[in-house]
Amino acid sequence: MKKILLIACMLFCSTSFAQERDSIIIKKIFDNTLTQSKAYEWLRHLCLSIGPRLSGSKGAQDAVNYTYNELKSIGLDSVWLQSVMVPHWERGSEKAVVNSKNGPEQPLSICALGGSVGTDEDGITAQVIEVNSFENFERLDIAMIKDKIVFFNYPMNPKFYNTFEAYGDAVKYRWRAAMAAASKGASAVLVRSMTLAMDDYAHTGSMGYVDSITKIPACALSTQSAELLHSMLLKDTHLSITLLLGCRWYDDAQSYNVIAEIKGSEKPNEIIIAGGHLDAWDNGQGAHDDGAGCVQSMQILQTLLDLHIKPKRTVRIILFMNEENGLRGGKAYAEYAEMNDAEKHIAAIESDAGGFSPRGFGADGPEDKVATVRSFQPMLDKYGLHDWEKNWGGADINPLKTLGTVVIGLIPDSQRYFDYHHAASDTFDKINKRELELGAASMTALVYLLTETDF
Amino acid sequence: MKKILLIACMLFCSTSFAQERDSIIIKKIFDNTLTQSKAYEWLRHLCLSIGPRLSGSKGAQDAVNYTYNELKSIGLDSVWLQSVMVPHWERGSEKAVVNSKNGPEQPLSICALGGSVGTDEDGITAQVIEVNSFENFERLDIAMIKDKIVFFNYPMNPKFYNTFEAYGDAVKYRWRAAMAAASKGASAVLVRSMTLAMDDYAHTGSMGYVDSITKIPACALSTQSAELLHSMLLKDTHLSITLLLGCRWYDDAQSYNVIAEIKGSEKPNEIIIAGGHLDAWDNGQGAHDDGAGCVQSMQILQTLLDLHIKPKRTVRIILFMNEENGLRGGKAYAEYAEMNDAEKHIAAIESDAGGFSPRGFGADGPEDKVATVRSFQPMLDKYGLHDWEKNWGGADINPLKTLGTVVIGLIPDSQRYFDYHHAASDTFDKINKRELELGAASMTALVYLLTETDF
Repeated sequence: MKKILLIACMLFCSTSFAQERDSIIIKKIFDNTLTQSKAYEWLRHLCLSIGPRLSGSKGAQDAVNYTYNELKSIGLDSVWLQSVMVPHWERGSEKAVVNSKNGPEQPLSICALGGSVGTDEDGITAQVIEVNSFENFERLDIAMIKDKIVFFNYPMNPKFYNTFEAYGDAVKYRWRAAMAAASKGASAVLVRSMTLAMDDYAHTGSMGYVDSITKIPACALSTQSAELLHSMLLKDTHLSITLLLGCRWYDDAQSYNVIAEIKGSEKPNEIIIAGGHLDAWDNGQGAHDDGAGCVQSMQILQTLLDLHIKPKRTVRIILFMNEENGLRGGKAYAEYAEMNDAEKHIAAIESDAGGFSPRGFGADGPEDKVATVRSFQPMLDKYGLHDWEKNWGGADINPLKTLGTVVIGLIPDSQRYFDYHHAASDTFDKINKRELELGAASMTALVYLLTETDF
Repeated sequence: MKKILLIACMLFCSTSFAQERDSIIIKKIFDNTLTQSKAYEWLRHLCLSIGPRLSGSKGAQDAVNYTYNELKSIGLDSVWLQSVMVPHWERGSEKAVVNSKNGPEQPLSICALGGSVGTDEDGITAQVIEVNSFENFERLDIAMIKDKIVFFNYPMNPKFYNTFEAYGDAVKYRWRAAMAAASKGASAVLVRSMTLAMDDYAHTGSMGYVDSITKIPACALSTQSAELLHSMLLKDTHLSITLLLGCRWYDDAQSYNVIAEIKGSEKPNEIIIAGGHLDAWDNGQGAHDDGAGCVQSMQILQTLLDLHIKPKRTVRIILFMNEENGLRGGKAYAEYAEMNDAEKHIAAIESDAGGFSPRGFGADGPEDKVATVRSFQPMLDKYGLHDWEKNWGGADINPLKTLGTVVIGLIPDSQRYFDYHHAASDTFDKINKRELELGAASMTALVYLLTETDF
């Protein structure tokens, strides 16, 4: 009995000693990141010196070069590029006006959806049919839709507390609108922007086509233009629009995931991944989506170096290419991981929900590993990380789930994210330095715990 | 035994029925506020049509008139003004330059601290002595300080996770600097602004004098100007500054708390207070501090009306006057409450920490009441309200604690607050409509629970 008590006591003491040591290290991680971080200056460069960086563009290549060189310069064990062939689409010029018999034309604030086909040089002029849901669209006769421009005016629902749920509810209109409208012979489609903000920024994003249905041009309207068009249609149901989209597809282009790591001191073949995506839509600077996630991931390695933390497992960051319109980077990395038997991918964290004040982590994958991740909450609670219940990792890392990897998503406050998402307003000035750093520190703390913990 | 089981079952069923009903009502409160709220438009008027509203100013009186009339228009049981005599101080013109033997003068971005005495028309020209703490200042000889301008360069510490703690740590320099410097014969004092942001906005705020120590002019330097002056002093320890402050004190002015209520249907003499403060520093628009808290409080009553909720207790909102430089409104209301035996002040909520994404509620007062408030957490958790541990109410409502009232503070995310606090940058464009509304809905939900619950 005495022996059991002794062993229990030793176990308890060693656990509580380990927890205290971890708490001290986590505090150091936060202190260091909040005072020494390079993340904000890295992001300034990505946004203001490079700017838009859609897959296949010069900006994307500049971002690869810049982050590779920065990571090379800070003294890591390895930095390399993983080759990825990416889709290459360009927006070209774009214009939409409401035609008027009397008086001037009314311009609308639009942007082509990502991957849309263009119009010819004269554009498409056609009557507009507004519908507020797929259900109501299904009820309309083909004769009513044929050769018209269909306007899907489905607002994001402000009643969802978490704006990602409102986005999940509405984004099917962006993805399916062109297919639905074309299946009844429409000549083009307009979609209300996926945002809760009422302003004049049009929000792009990827859309779907299938080979069996004619590919028609598709664009997003700013919420203000959607409201304007709606009110004009109430007065004149025969309104016509002229739409010009100069979009073009090119051959796939050579691009890269940027990868860097600190080798594990005890288990170098067990890998903890952290990442964001380097590509960003062409109409903004990709500040929140997802420059923030990239520089936060880079900062993880910088902080480990600053604090001379030698992680037991290998910490590898990946700046994924092509999350926005193909996910080729995420898929390519998962293929590499699957082929490479010598490495075991324990866990992967992604930051791709904006550089806002962090509120927790989602986790998905094997139940026991998810439970282990959630067991870290008490140690991170005082840094505002209360929200640990979502089953979510991240688009680029989710393919790793098939390997038994637990995938983890940083959850920042969601309220402002869709104000800027995929729009020209996603710019560096929307980033708060301290909130960005808190996200980086939260990720670093979690990575640290993941490298130390038995799985 | 059967009877006991039956009673237990009935109690359990009725409790769980009540909780379900409350959950439904809370959801309606959030839905209504996120779709119908007037708070953002009220705040637009307060910020952009009225603007600065320091106690005793025309802006303060305009704000009283505007909010009184708005509250009168929405159909409440009573709206009235409580007379409050307030201090009346005006900033006047202000200027500080670093003098130079060669080349042009270097202007500094400053603002007088609230309540500072002015300089005469020629200003004060004197050598600057920089110190980074009171401890180091204590070590300096009087001879070294006499007739000099003392520059307290103590930065807010970014290592505190909660920025209010960093503010609490640093703000003693704003409050005590003039007294400390004058006690060794200094002619004026400069204080580094209380902010974590590195920019060119100077942040004002109240300061202290005592009659036994000469009152010397005191102003805040923007963080960038503080850094600039610091670096100039490293090169030339004999630098002098010329400081002109046109501040003036006037006689106390007539002003008002604006009060409005919905009478309780069952316990009209039991009062639940909600409020913010209507006065705001004269250099900005008082958007986050504290226009936000005022319009959120107004929205509580509007939402109860919209949803036809008849609260059991009286819900009374108070837009307090003079929180910033005297707290006369809060004190006057507490005096009224103390004298009025017919009313029992059960609980009071204040929103005075910005219109940011809400994260919880602090509570202070009688232990059992605090426990009751904290017992509401599970019902509000899904609205992001995780943080319930702070013992804090609000400056205007804290005087009610002596009556046994539990005082409650809305806790928004703190990370951005001191970027704008008391500075010209506290403007309407810094407000996110949805975050403001979430704060209003959170307060309304809590008020609703407070009116329904046995205390």
